[in-house]
Amino acid sequence: MRIYNFEEEAESVNVDEIYMKEAFKLAQKAYEEDEVPIGAVIVSQGKIIGKGYNLTERLNDVTAHAEMQAFTAAANFLGGKYLKDCTLYVTVEPCVMCAGASYWTQISRIVYGAKDEKRGYASVNPKIMHPKTLITSGIMEAECSELMKRFFKSKR
Amino acid sequence: MRIYNFEEEAESVNVDEIYMKEAFKLAQKAYEEDEVPIGAVIVSQGKIIGKGYNLTERLNDVTAHAEMQAFTAAANFLGGKYLKDCTLYVTVEPCVMCAGASYWTQISRIVYGAKDEKRGYASVNPKIMHPKTLITSGIMEAECSELMKRFFKSKR
Repeated sequence: MRIYNFEEEAESVNVDEIYMKEAFKLAQKAYEEDEVPIGAVIVSQGKIIGKGYNLTERLNDVTAHAEMQAFTAAANFLGGKYLKDCTLYVTVEPCVMCAGASYWTQISRIVYGAKDEKRGYASVNPKIMHPKTLITSGIMEAECSELMKRFFKSKR
Repeated sequence: MRIYNFEEEAESVNVDEIYMKEAFKLAQKAYEEDEVPIGAVIVSQGKIIGKGYNLTERLNDVTAHAEMQAFTAAANFLGGKYLKDCTLYVTVEPCVMCAGASYWTQISRIVYGAKDEKRGYASVNPKIMHPKTLITSGIMEAECSELMKRFFKSKR
């Protein structure tokens, strides 16, 4: 019988929140630059090795999502294209393109904040993700979601 | 009643082959550089405005697919991120990532050569594509498929 360790649980939640806060700061930066406010960091062995925020407007490029930039940066850092012992923290559920990219990276884990009911990968097919990729959702969900809502409200 | 115009049909097939040949040349270039041999061009008003070939090995970057580079190049050329009056010619069926990217570009048409039964977008969900994107497949299918087979055989 395994005795449930509340401290362990509490600690693991905190670690995810620490990195999600970093992703959230990048989302806020995107917001300030009038971009869809999504931010991402990639963590390996307790260290941020890649980051990105949405730059589709500035770069006139639909592929310039936060996650795509973070994948490229992390692969550059590691000198290899696979992100097998890495975790992606991203403020909003990845879209199909980003989930498809994550498949190719074989990333170990993805943690996201807010769900994207309309354009999130899971609404198309949850199996887009690599079978080895663990998914955690809902970290800082309220803040991540509220930032998106505020952005789109300001655009109306 | 519309009278079927065989000449028109014949001509449209030829146009697709002309551009697919350009994509195929880029796939051959990838092959020579020891990359998975896939090439792509994007055409607008009879002009190639973006091209790319797979560079995932050289760039150590899983996002460096032929189509992704072609999308970025075409958007740079047009100065806007939507590719509404453009056609993508790509030698192999796009993967989920590239299909997801094409969704964001709202590209008018995608023409591909060989099917990719294992990693092609259609095996996951054909609805990944934007509803406005027309799909044509099978142009230079044999050549495109043979080049891929030759590449993977040489890797074994």
